Amino acid sequence: MHPGNGAEGPLTPGLVFEMLQAHQRTAALKAAIDLDLFRAVGEGPGDVASIARHCKCSERGIRILCDFLTITEVLVKEDGRYRHSPTSAAFLDPRSPMSLASIAQFLSNPANREPYDHLAEIVRTGRTTLAGDGSVEPENPIWVQFAETMAPMMAPMAGPLGATVLEGRTGPMRVLDIAAGHGLFGIEIAKQNPQAQVTGLDWAPVLRVALDNAQKAGVQERYDMIPGSAFEVDFKGPYDAVLLTNFLHHFDQPTCVALLKKVHAALKAGGRVATLEFVPNEDRVSPRMAASFSMTMLASTPAGDAYTLSELTAMYTAAGFSNITAHPIPMSPHTIVLGSA
Amino acid sequence: MHPGNGAEGPLTPGLVFEMLQAHQRTAALKAAIDLDLFRAVGEGPGDVASIARHCKCSERGIRILCDFLTITEVLVKEDGRYRHSPTSAAFLDPRSPMSLASIAQFLSNPANREPYDHLAEIVRTGRTTLAGDGSVEPENPIWVQFAETMAPMMAPMAGPLGATVLEGRTGPMRVLDIAAGHGLFGIEIAKQNPQAQVTGLDWAPVLRVALDNAQKAGVQERYDMIPGSAFEVDFKGPYDAVLLTNFLHHFDQPTCVALLKKVHAALKAGGRVATLEFVPNEDRVSPRMAASFSMTMLASTPAGDAYTLSELTAMYTAAGFSNITAHPIPMSPHTIVLGSA
Repeated sequence: MHPGNGAEGPLTPGLVFEMLQAHQRTAALKAAIDLDLFRAVGEGPGDVASIARHCKCSERGIRILCDFLTITEVLVKEDGRYRHSPTSAAFLDPRSPMSLASIAQFLSNPANREPYDHLAEIVRTGRTTLAGDGSVEPENPIWVQFAETMAPMMAPMAGPLGATVLEGRTGPMRVLDIAAGHGLFGIEIAKQNPQAQVTGLDWAPVLRVALDNAQKAGVQERYDMIPGSAFEVDFKGPYDAVLLTNFLHHFDQPTCVALLKKVHAALKAGGRVATLEFVPNEDRVSPRMAASFSMTMLASTPAGDAYTLSELTAMYTAAGFSNITAHPIPMSPHTIVLGSA
Repeated sequence: MHPGNGAEGPLTPGLVFEMLQAHQRTAALKAAIDLDLFRAVGEGPGDVASIARHCKCSERGIRILCDFLTITEVLVKEDGRYRHSPTSAAFLDPRSPMSLASIAQFLSNPANREPYDHLAEIVRTGRTTLAGDGSVEPENPIWVQFAETMAPMMAPMAGPLGATVLEGRTGPMRVLDIAAGHGLFGIEIAKQNPQAQVTGLDWAPVLRVALDNAQKAGVQERYDMIPGSAFEVDFKGPYDAVLLTNFLHHFDQPTCVALLKKVHAALKAGGRVATLEFVPNEDRVSPRMAASFSMTMLASTPAGDAYTLSELTAMYTAAGFSNITAHPIPMSPHTIVLGSA
């Protein structure tokens, strides 16, 4: 999507034009998901008339939308018919077990989208234009939606996270999952270690989603819950491990250090904390997906950020942790950072 | 911006995630233009504190915005400082004669952006959700803004268009510029042929912009105007040439044919019509920019489209034109299509 402007090409305004129209890409993918277009493409035969019938849409609209999705490399067009690309077959057809269609609901939630209509003001003031503390406002209902819809995006990370935290450790242990959300990370620990007792901590309405998932996984007998704010509730330690997934990035560094100290105090000696984070390189502009996440934090929080490993290490150290190690998860923008109490 | 999913890479959901967040790219570029960030980067020294001072912004906001613009390859970051890429130096620094910053105002006009919030409904019904006929509603004020802000995008096309239409022809001639907008195309004819008399046709408030530009070019003595709708006014022919730039794509084919017949009737025998259009290949999915333009027409008009050369040829032929030839403009998404009356 960067026409021209490569070292190899002549100078053209293609990149500028493409960026000013990039919002069309988001709208097109969201519309296609909402219209059940990817099921229609998967079922075939893939001509405009059949897809339009399935989606109860105009042929003009379907033709132009499918052409646009072909241009953006989501679909493949051949002899006037559309079929899945490997990407759409795996991640967009609702019949696929890896379907990510539900994450569009969270990412296009007005609470997540609206700040971008005021981005200049956000850059000016340095904080979200959302009311209160934005996405980290207490009891913000978006986290129920996150728990309900973003699980498919996070599920592939659960296995590697569980293995990294446990490192083959068996036997009785207690694990606290802070900001549990969908609960998948703590549940994975319970699955990998049949003697692990897991405590999920999150807002009460969110924990209902985690409990549902614990029941589906058959580990609800070993799944306890602490409803409330991680900054306010008693953690009820001591624990062998504390998971702190996709959470630190919402807050400024002093807030993170204070929370990490509270985590440290809730761990047994030698117990470990494990964060799952978007960790950009020290240049803050690579890798692309992890580094881009700072923009999401600028738009939606008062002071959050995608922290570099040196920043996370400094915070861990300030909170009393040692043996700090980073474990990037292959094929994902996430990194696990471990520390020992 | 397509992480993974190339033939060479493993299958990842990077493309899905990137598309669902692509609206961030539009918001970031628009915010940077609005905050005068590209002037600050051009003037240097390019550290966060200096840029924040110039833009009267928070350092957190500027750092994250500049990093995001580096990730999207608009800026370059080196040793913690930001500097122009060739693209931003040429097309985004307001000090550059090629600056396109003003086109962001048109492209982000709510009338252009809002339909994308209802794209599923638009695909369903096959027409814009904008009131009336959307962007082609009579006297729509967006065309004044188009004339005022999109000229830098269109200016590079004027020279090639003028040369293609004139083919070295000199001497007295009359040229009608339908939907003149900024007027640059007709004005270019007047510049290339000092004996050409040009008539601009557009809504009266738009023609004020064209007249301003004719005066700046010193050709106002040879610039007449017909205010009103191209479908309703008397063209006051006969003409040697009629320009029909960026216009046919707003309408369905029968409407285009009717207009082309009216153009044909206003031309001298052997006179030529010249359209400037986004002309996708017959597959409708390449080249990228021209083919993508159908989406803009879906969102903003009742029945417009980016027409292929075979469709344009059929319309020209139905209106009585012959000798139909296509002339793609190098380094641009536009094609000139000529026909003879």
